[in-house]
Amino acid sequence: MYDELLEKGDVVDIRYPAKGFIVVKPWGMRIIKHLYREFEDLLEEDGHHPVHFPAVIPEDNLRKEGEHFKGFESEVFWITRAGLKELQKKLILRPTSETAIYPMFALWIKGHSDLPVKVYLSEAVWRYETKATRPLIRGREFLWIETHDAFRTHEDAHAQVLKDLEIATKVIKELLKLDFIMVRRPDWDRFAGAEYTYAIDVLLPDGKVLQIATTHNLGQKFAKVFDIKFMDKDEQEKYVHQTCFGIGIYRILASIIYIHGDEVGLRLPSAVAPVQVAVIPVKPEAEEYAKEISKDIPYRTEVDLSQKSPGNKFFYWDKKGVPAKVVVGPKEMQEGTVTISMRTGEKITVPREKMVQVLSEKIKEYDEGLFKPIAIKDVSSLDELEQAIKEKKVARAGFCSISEEGKQCYQVIKEKFNAEVRGERIDIQESPEGMKCLVCGKEAKHVVYIAKQY
Amino acid sequence: MYDELLEKGDVVDIRYPAKGFIVVKPWGMRIIKHLYREFEDLLEEDGHHPVHFPAVIPEDNLRKEGEHFKGFESEVFWITRAGLKELQKKLILRPTSETAIYPMFALWIKGHSDLPVKVYLSEAVWRYETKATRPLIRGREFLWIETHDAFRTHEDAHAQVLKDLEIATKVIKELLKLDFIMVRRPDWDRFAGAEYTYAIDVLLPDGKVLQIATTHNLGQKFAKVFDIKFMDKDEQEKYVHQTCFGIGIYRILASIIYIHGDEVGLRLPSAVAPVQVAVIPVKPEAEEYAKEISKDIPYRTEVDLSQKSPGNKFFYWDKKGVPAKVVVGPKEMQEGTVTISMRTGEKITVPREKMVQVLSEKIKEYDEGLFKPIAIKDVSSLDELEQAIKEKKVARAGFCSISEEGKQCYQVIKEKFNAEVRGERIDIQESPEGMKCLVCGKEAKHVVYIAKQY
Repeated sequence: MYDELLEKGDVVDIRYPAKGFIVVKPWGMRIIKHLYREFEDLLEEDGHHPVHFPAVIPEDNLRKEGEHFKGFESEVFWITRAGLKELQKKLILRPTSETAIYPMFALWIKGHSDLPVKVYLSEAVWRYETKATRPLIRGREFLWIETHDAFRTHEDAHAQVLKDLEIATKVIKELLKLDFIMVRRPDWDRFAGAEYTYAIDVLLPDGKVLQIATTHNLGQKFAKVFDIKFMDKDEQEKYVHQTCFGIGIYRILASIIYIHGDEVGLRLPSAVAPVQVAVIPVKPEAEEYAKEISKDIPYRTEVDLSQKSPGNKFFYWDKKGVPAKVVVGPKEMQEGTVTISMRTGEKITVPREKMVQVLSEKIKEYDEGLFKPIAIKDVSSLDELEQAIKEKKVARAGFCSISEEGKQCYQVIKEKFNAEVRGERIDIQESPEGMKCLVCGKEAKHVVYIAKQY
Repeated sequence: MYDELLEKGDVVDIRYPAKGFIVVKPWGMRIIKHLYREFEDLLEEDGHHPVHFPAVIPEDNLRKEGEHFKGFESEVFWITRAGLKELQKKLILRPTSETAIYPMFALWIKGHSDLPVKVYLSEAVWRYETKATRPLIRGREFLWIETHDAFRTHEDAHAQVLKDLEIATKVIKELLKLDFIMVRRPDWDRFAGAEYTYAIDVLLPDGKVLQIATTHNLGQKFAKVFDIKFMDKDEQEKYVHQTCFGIGIYRILASIIYIHGDEVGLRLPSAVAPVQVAVIPVKPEAEEYAKEISKDIPYRTEVDLSQKSPGNKFFYWDKKGVPAKVVVGPKEMQEGTVTISMRTGEKITVPREKMVQVLSEKIKEYDEGLFKPIAIKDVSSLDELEQAIKEKKVARAGFCSISEEGKQCYQVIKEKFNAEVRGERIDIQESPEGMKCLVCGKEAKHVVYIAKQY
């Protein structure tokens, strides 16, 4: 189903001759550019500025933070030669940019008036994935946004983590109409080097969850390793508090395709549809009328002047996920009307003067109609968990602990079902009162969500 | 001078611990984002679509076009290891994307109705430069745009090359106010694999020219190597005709900084200034008034609420190259006026109601004032050429030939002055009638431009 949707939507080409690397075709890249812009606008509003950092990191930098290096050692690409020469100082392709950026932060930050520093990168990273790869979901190169922030206090850093989640919610839920669970990850599943990790998971139709964004409070750990200090108001030299936020642009695109798509093809949220309205003349003599009315439409519009039959034109734009088609033929020309044909199948003929208003209402309805809440099933035993997994739902259960002491119970779940404890919800408050851990039966300290993951 | 400007403008950081790689700081990256958007908008208007191609190219691909491989062999970075494993199939970091893209074109293009294909990438490339590097001018990583187009006929390809130059002119000359010479490169200086290369050179204040954009007619050479064929209207299978166009975003930024900058700092063309108008309250009690009037300003505006003295605020925004400052204090508040203070030093106090109109006029004047024609000197002997180079001008001279047969004369110039024959002008027609080659004294077939280059 997913692979068919990629094909129908003409989103990517998976035939690039290097394993795990894909080409993003024009339609896919146009969606991605809108995704970037939506996130970047909100990040900039929140005081982030764009920066560019090199794609390569000297080996020494990566090695500096031990836990971080261990987390990435087995999955980085190494540049060992340049031209015809062996490099004395080897370089890695960045798998994420902490160890590229933080040595520069140490140079940039001197006093409290330099803080906060809030920057973002909209670029690719590379990881040598050895698990099975899947286009846009898991690959050896992916496009994302990473923000890196430094603050005076721990509270400022925590507030940023919450702000990051607010930005993610605005785009992912409100614009893209993707439901998700927002959780604090168990301690065994934190980002290498973070104090705590908050993450956003969507549920794909095959029953597996996909992490599409994460924000980390890094505390002062990296600051100490990279010596990022500032003179505070009280004349004391202190380490900064840091956060970083990863927005998986590829994975969000994958989610739009897989979750919203249907048997016909893509169904794109209007916010990121490269073409929001396709204007389709069904006869050559309607082409001028089509061009004329297209000028009135305050959406990203394309007039389809191809030689295809009307049916093939409809099919083409439906596959590509365009929200609305405005269809005009001799009848509409004579009547001074247009026929609005939505991706949902709904059709309505309206006078030309009403077109813009009706389009706006119908596109809004269409967007709302895309939203479908995540299927969640309460479970209180491993049998019930198995059932939830079979039903392709996310299981909600009592759990003894998401600190290290709960790891044993997690490992039972991992071994039996190859499933993951995704963590404790943070977008809503849930009390574990009266619940037991579904594995050990001890009193539950957390309500957690469990599912297989990508 | 240039290094000071980079520092004053806070554009890049050259302390990144890998030689030849630089960090672009927020102010620099914000300018770059505007540069990208100006070019991309025109490219899209001309029917180009964005795509993403992997940063890595399998060795085999690069090797396919022999001349092209020879051109890049000594300057590519090699990825030989992944994780803890030697790679069986080595990868290179793309130095340019022809050999990544064209195998995919072979898969995408079947019939004449698939043509033209016109795509662009806005991404980084990597070249192992062994010459002295200079920030934004010559480095081991740079940001650019590359377009890759395929056409039915040679005429279509040639028309695209001209269209590319038109787009470059619109942005570089009309918006960015940079004068340039547009030339056909001599045959010994063509892009590896191209039929002919047209290029745009600016003249930097140190007397060297810098190539900031090039467009190439690749003919059918790559098409034959990568087997990019289509079924034409006449039922014959034919090879496509290709062009590619490189827009050096880093180098254009360098040119803006170096050519427009003065002893104070940057002077940014308003089109790409991240802040076009800085609103400066000179006393805390004017802050509210400053915020209020800033809402009326239809430009990218920032209100400077920092704790700095008024003088330091002026200095800060002047260094960063912001075209206009709107200054308000108790006097302006009382009178209901604002003081417009331009980067040129011009100052004028106007009633609030007139602010927008005057700003618009003054910013237009400011932009026009940035333009300064390239200094060109006619020469007819090697002595005169030496003099032109000393005067930091581009020399214009008669030249025997820009085909291979002129290479000997070129080599004399290269050896004596380390200068380059940039080629024959194509934006204006110049007749060599009555001129002699400044080296061999034979009848001149071309009027060429000669200068040292970066």
